[in-house]
Amino acid sequence: MKARVTVTLKNGVLDPQGKAIEGALKSLDVNGIGSVRQGKVFDIEVATSDASEAKAILEAACTKLLANTVIENFQIDII
Amino acid sequence: MKARVTVTLKNGVLDPQGKAIEGALKSLDVNGIGSVRQGKVFDIEVATSDASEAKAILEAACTKLLANTVIENFQIDII
Repeated sequence: MKARVTVTLKNGVLDPQGKAIEGALKSLDVNGIGSVRQGKVFDIEVATSDASEAKAILEAACTKLLANTVIENFQIDII
Repeated sequence: MKARVTVTLKNGVLDPQGKAIEGALKSLDVNGIGSVRQGKVFDIEVATSDASEAKAILEAACTKLLANTVIENFQIDII
């Protein structure tokens, strides 16, 4: 079963990488961009065909390794 | 208008970061994970209310900066 985990910064957490991308886009003459916030995405193959079991495994993976839950949110989508 | 741009490695391109995550999850006793491939996600605020104009701006941003189109695919979702 395939899943996509998206990890994004919580609102209010500063994102210097996103700010750098905004500046770079401006200097590359890409106009019309407001704010940019960068996150991570993980395409994961889970070795089970049960969706709720897969979600449980992925939640464990997120809280233990993939996301820093103090400053980041994660979202799990089975695809 | 808000959009989410997802940049992922093309099939066949090696992903050592994903392999490292697989190994780390195993050593953290998270079982049932097959392969992991990591990508990037950008939450972008575009200064237009026209969806096709927004897509054009974001495509320019992707090809110029956000994605290396030799080894990466990008996907634009207006949200």
